[in-house]
Amino acid sequence: MTTDAPAPSDLAFVPFVSVQNMMRLVQSIGVESFIEGIAAYLEEDFRNWEAFDKTPRVASHSAEGVIELMPTSNGEVYGFKYVNGHPKNTREGLQTVTAFGLLAQVDTGYPVLLSEMTMLTALRTAATSALVAKNLMPKGSHTMAVIGNGAQSEFQCLAMKKLCGIRRVKLYDIDPAATAKAAKNLEGQGLEVVSCTTAQDAIEGAQILTTCTADKQCATILSDNMVGAGVHINAIGGDCPGKTELHVDILKRSDIFVEYPPQTRIEGEIQALPDDYPVEEVWEVIAGRKQGRTSESQITLFDGVGFAIEDFSALRFVRDRIKGTPFMEQLDMLADPDDPRDLFGMLQRSSGE
Amino acid sequence: MTTDAPAPSDLAFVPFVSVQNMMRLVQSIGVESFIEGIAAYLEEDFRNWEAFDKTPRVASHSAEGVIELMPTSNGEVYGFKYVNGHPKNTREGLQTVTAFGLLAQVDTGYPVLLSEMTMLTALRTAATSALVAKNLMPKGSHTMAVIGNGAQSEFQCLAMKKLCGIRRVKLYDIDPAATAKAAKNLEGQGLEVVSCTTAQDAIEGAQILTTCTADKQCATILSDNMVGAGVHINAIGGDCPGKTELHVDILKRSDIFVEYPPQTRIEGEIQALPDDYPVEEVWEVIAGRKQGRTSESQITLFDGVGFAIEDFSALRFVRDRIKGTPFMEQLDMLADPDDPRDLFGMLQRSSGE
Repeated sequence: MTTDAPAPSDLAFVPFVSVQNMMRLVQSIGVESFIEGIAAYLEEDFRNWEAFDKTPRVASHSAEGVIELMPTSNGEVYGFKYVNGHPKNTREGLQTVTAFGLLAQVDTGYPVLLSEMTMLTALRTAATSALVAKNLMPKGSHTMAVIGNGAQSEFQCLAMKKLCGIRRVKLYDIDPAATAKAAKNLEGQGLEVVSCTTAQDAIEGAQILTTCTADKQCATILSDNMVGAGVHINAIGGDCPGKTELHVDILKRSDIFVEYPPQTRIEGEIQALPDDYPVEEVWEVIAGRKQGRTSESQITLFDGVGFAIEDFSALRFVRDRIKGTPFMEQLDMLADPDDPRDLFGMLQRSSGE
Repeated sequence: MTTDAPAPSDLAFVPFVSVQNMMRLVQSIGVESFIEGIAAYLEEDFRNWEAFDKTPRVASHSAEGVIELMPTSNGEVYGFKYVNGHPKNTREGLQTVTAFGLLAQVDTGYPVLLSEMTMLTALRTAATSALVAKNLMPKGSHTMAVIGNGAQSEFQCLAMKKLCGIRRVKLYDIDPAATAKAAKNLEGQGLEVVSCTTAQDAIEGAQILTTCTADKQCATILSDNMVGAGVHINAIGGDCPGKTELHVDILKRSDIFVEYPPQTRIEGEIQALPDDYPVEEVWEVIAGRKQGRTSESQITLFDGVGFAIEDFSALRFVRDRIKGTPFMEQLDMLADPDDPRDLFGMLQRSSGE
């Protein structure tokens, strides 16, 4: 760089959290505390739900998958997530879902954080599930069944331990190798881990039933006769049209709680129900406006699909927690000429480099 | 990093072009050749217009400005641009518009390029204007008037020189300092530069009239009696609701060409006309499906607001031209576990760092 081309000012730099730095940040805080921290931000944003710009995902569909943008704003901060969903990727050694996200100041439009969100989405999904379960599960819940032991399963277990007091997890996957992987990863995490060979075994004695399977076309992971009274179902797999996990009769026996009805009716379990089927919005329960569980025998169902505000909360948490840490880089992403009208001059003056 | 945490594979990295690297890339190619290169990609994508997913911008409005996402896809490649518009930013020493963009592979959803787009947007806007002018201007055009001498003006001049054979530019701005800046920047660029003190002076003898003013609320930069027959008007300033530059009587005397009518009717000059006022789409002219200029006395008007496909073309050009150059960094933006189902294990194994 010549003396004619001064270094960009601080305004031109956007803090970037890479995958490596996200993992370092999570490790420095601890996985459970990190999830608990996101949950606190989630709770704050759910209470402030009505102040947010809400819109269904902006999706670009193709034969192989979907690429989506999920924007939202609370009037002060704007955020969006880029996320893809390509079920066939796994067969090619790629992630089904990759994601990154951004926060910007509404008053200037300047980005203030760019972050990986593959890891962060897993953490925020677990935080959301646990925050919702805390508000809906039967009192004194101690055991959770986890049907589907893929990338999301361990995060769910630790979140439910930290926020809901779960002490025992019962794992089941159609692929025993997935169960073995999850059981091994959960060693030494302070949970009693039971590996099961059928879904029915896993559900036995559990108060929280988590389904987090992927790559299924309207598969029925739970059938009606498997689910007794007095449980909370946390159904977070199957997050696009044509993907469901629960038999429709379970839905009809449950009180259903969702994030944002216009999106969930397209993507969630309730796509199997009529468009006007009554559902509750979880933010109203968390904000204390609506009652959650009303009896011990009730079946509550969180039909979670993941909503933009949850990513927003997670990004806000990361933005606040990376301050003063070395877990970020500064990206020279915004042109910052001395005179905003002189972009061309800025380019010309860079020519000596 | 411990030996337990292998470095991410190539798939996890996204090439990133910073502002500094974009300037280096432009300098290494030359501004005019860079614009000509974008124009060639634009022409290819305009000819392929019908294959693109097209949607108006996804906008988040606030009292101070707007933040927009502009996504598009041709079925093989997906792209979007993040862009803000905050007219009051200039008064705080910030850019009115900052932008960055991304390309991804449709078949995997994996991002393949992240790039600054403040500089690149100026270059693609100039390339678009010149490509359109080449198709619509009177034969033998040699002189362009430039009303508004801000950040876009010099790029317009060089683009029109390279693609349209313009030899003389006549500059006018309500602020003489802006004209002086543009005139100085254009020294030694092979153009005859005439600084004017009125818009009327600037227009005298010009075959192309470019208006690129900003921060105006329905200002009338050109009034009806100023514009004679046989010119091409390149109206690219004023790109949001409530911002226009031309008197409506000029519109009525012109044949109007736009990028994407649903967006231009909201943002462009034609917002002053009825919703069903007839306009032509420039891609049809460029693809040879419609005639452009039909007589020497005709007034053609390009009501340019900037469309997602133009950003897509510019990003494609950058992606192809950075290959083999040092003008990029590799961002560790995508989690890439050895086993896609083992995100948690990847996090655990990073703990020794």
